[in-house]
Amino acid sequence: MESFPGVEGIRWGAAEAGIRKRGGLDLGLVLCAEPAATAAIFTRSVSAAAPVLLSRQRLRRGRAAAILVNAGCANACTPEGREAAEATTAAIARATGAPEQLVLCASTGVIGAPLPVDRVLAAVPDLVADAAPEGLPRFAEAIRTTDTFAKLSFRPAGKAMVVGCAKGAGMIQPNMATMLGFLATDARVAPPLLRRLLRDTAHATFNAVTVDGDTSTNDSLFLLATGATGQPVEEGTPAYRALAKSLGEVATDLAKAIARDGEGATKRIAVRVDGARTEAEADRIARRIANSPLVKTAIHAADANWGRIVAAAGTAGVAFDPARLEVAIGPAVVVRGGVGTTLAAERAAAEHLAGDDVEIRVKLGRGQGSRTIWTCDLSADYVRINAEYRT
Amino acid sequence: MESFPGVEGIRWGAAEAGIRKRGGLDLGLVLCAEPAATAAIFTRSVSAAAPVLLSRQRLRRGRAAAILVNAGCANACTPEGREAAEATTAAIARATGAPEQLVLCASTGVIGAPLPVDRVLAAVPDLVADAAPEGLPRFAEAIRTTDTFAKLSFRPAGKAMVVGCAKGAGMIQPNMATMLGFLATDARVAPPLLRRLLRDTAHATFNAVTVDGDTSTNDSLFLLATGATGQPVEEGTPAYRALAKSLGEVATDLAKAIARDGEGATKRIAVRVDGARTEAEADRIARRIANSPLVKTAIHAADANWGRIVAAAGTAGVAFDPARLEVAIGPAVVVRGGVGTTLAAERAAAEHLAGDDVEIRVKLGRGQGSRTIWTCDLSADYVRINAEYRT
Repeated sequence: MESFPGVEGIRWGAAEAGIRKRGGLDLGLVLCAEPAATAAIFTRSVSAAAPVLLSRQRLRRGRAAAILVNAGCANACTPEGREAAEATTAAIARATGAPEQLVLCASTGVIGAPLPVDRVLAAVPDLVADAAPEGLPRFAEAIRTTDTFAKLSFRPAGKAMVVGCAKGAGMIQPNMATMLGFLATDARVAPPLLRRLLRDTAHATFNAVTVDGDTSTNDSLFLLATGATGQPVEEGTPAYRALAKSLGEVATDLAKAIARDGEGATKRIAVRVDGARTEAEADRIARRIANSPLVKTAIHAADANWGRIVAAAGTAGVAFDPARLEVAIGPAVVVRGGVGTTLAAERAAAEHLAGDDVEIRVKLGRGQGSRTIWTCDLSADYVRINAEYRT
Repeated sequence: MESFPGVEGIRWGAAEAGIRKRGGLDLGLVLCAEPAATAAIFTRSVSAAAPVLLSRQRLRRGRAAAILVNAGCANACTPEGREAAEATTAAIARATGAPEQLVLCASTGVIGAPLPVDRVLAAVPDLVADAAPEGLPRFAEAIRTTDTFAKLSFRPAGKAMVVGCAKGAGMIQPNMATMLGFLATDARVAPPLLRRLLRDTAHATFNAVTVDGDTSTNDSLFLLATGATGQPVEEGTPAYRALAKSLGEVATDLAKAIARDGEGATKRIAVRVDGARTEAEADRIARRIANSPLVKTAIHAADANWGRIVAAAGTAGVAFDPARLEVAIGPAVVVRGGVGTTLAAERAAAEHLAGDDVEIRVKLGRGQGSRTIWTCDLSADYVRINAEYRT
């Protein structure tokens, strides 16, 4: 971890505030030397948590000076949530000199429990003192909930650097049903272009991870650009393409790590749909398959039960012609022209499923629309972890 | 079982054809003395199975003389499915004298395996010989797959009788992912009115059962009216209302039994949403909650984790005002005005969840739309049953 690169102009901190029962780091801080161009994508839930509402509001001008993050409490669905978000970000502003209106926040943890503001305030001095350019691994540690490993990635982009970290999402994170992601670069990008860059990056990465199609009350993804490398990055230039490429790779690393680290998961699954009329159509079918508990349990058992894939695809609300349907599991085409191929293919498919990186490909033969969605298998451990979560 | 009532003009038969490995009854027959007015609702999957396609076509005139049903093989996604459905229904026509074009069929079982036509043909004489007016319990037995009990119900409707049976559906019936339902009455109803009656009945009953929102390749629901009681039933009359009421009650019994009998399920869950703008809006939210693995695992553990209910409701695509949201678990209102109420309420909710009949009520406060959806909890047994299904 010592060698994990930093991004000029950002320090990362972590501290233990005692918010979660099991102890350990549970507070994180992103601290900019100067307010950085910042873009964010938040949950579309109508029950968005207080930190989401506050951050959305404060980000109107496209700049942020700091982001305070806590694990162990979602700060959602309580009467005092707004006040708690304001009080804790105000403390960060006081301790760091950052303009209060540019301090954002994010929370992950139990919904409905009040944020223990006093504990957060008490830990702020430690948190700020801890902040360091090379602190990202500790920060990534602090935002973990039931993740079994911290998710980190980096890529150089020409003269700039891109770093990122994330914690798990969706059904794979029960009560802590939150995906949090932080991307940062020292490239200089104007806020409107940064927003587009983040939207495009998220579409093919974080937004392609699903287990139950659910969005939590707290999902937040941030991209900060400090501009320390000087030269502004303009659209259509080689520097822009290099930055977009590196951002995409970092985000892909993190999204795949989230899919791989589902609770009780033993396999990562990529569902790719080709030949749809539109990308949106491909997306619907890929998600339907990726969210089917029957498909996920069959894959868990390495059972090449393609009937479940066909059944899921057939009810995604897309009127494809079943006589043109092709389904492959790994290298083995198990359905062609809508009907099963050979026992040999089924055997080859079962072999592929015995591994821990599974690929399902579906071809519809009605257009050029494609989409890949990542998910994980469904095991009895998942149910055990979630059923016992608060007991 | 001896006292289960019949419907004048229909005989029910069952036989063992050896289609499924574990043995036992796997062939069923509905045999009408005269072609009966018949309505049906079939799967909306684009990959509908051969028996669905054939029955849909033969039912154009709204009458049926017989329905051949098999368990153990879905007769779906194979090149020879159509031929198999035609050959087996032709055999029923020959053996009974029913017009071949009025013999329908339904199948449930593994997708992608060819129907063993020879075995079915060999069992036809036994099947026809077995048909008897009081044979419905044996018929219900024959169409079971992983159902742990046969699902039967009856209600008198004035001078007429309504009987019905069904087998389980959706995610709760893995490879055998099929809901089959058979309703019959000796009332006399013209085919167009019968179709409307079935559609209205199914909407509030079978179509309100979900576990994963999936529709199989084989789902079929039939309603036969032999007319043996003579007097035609006209819309708006007391006889019509009595028939609609009894049909609704029989269908409700069967739908609830399906929800209760999910694989690995230990509890039945009713999710009722009130105060939506429209019924469709209420339906979306109720289904989102009913299909959430997080909600289902929490209920399995009798954990009054209302945050999961709020999170699911918030992402159903309905822009309700979270400040007006109310959630009750059994008798206990756990969320009011979008925030948690009291620990005492949470304790009362947990007590309710310890029972095996769970009620979740959500109020949105934006209109008069209501909908109740039935489902079941999600246990580690479910995963075990489904993962080990073909191994």
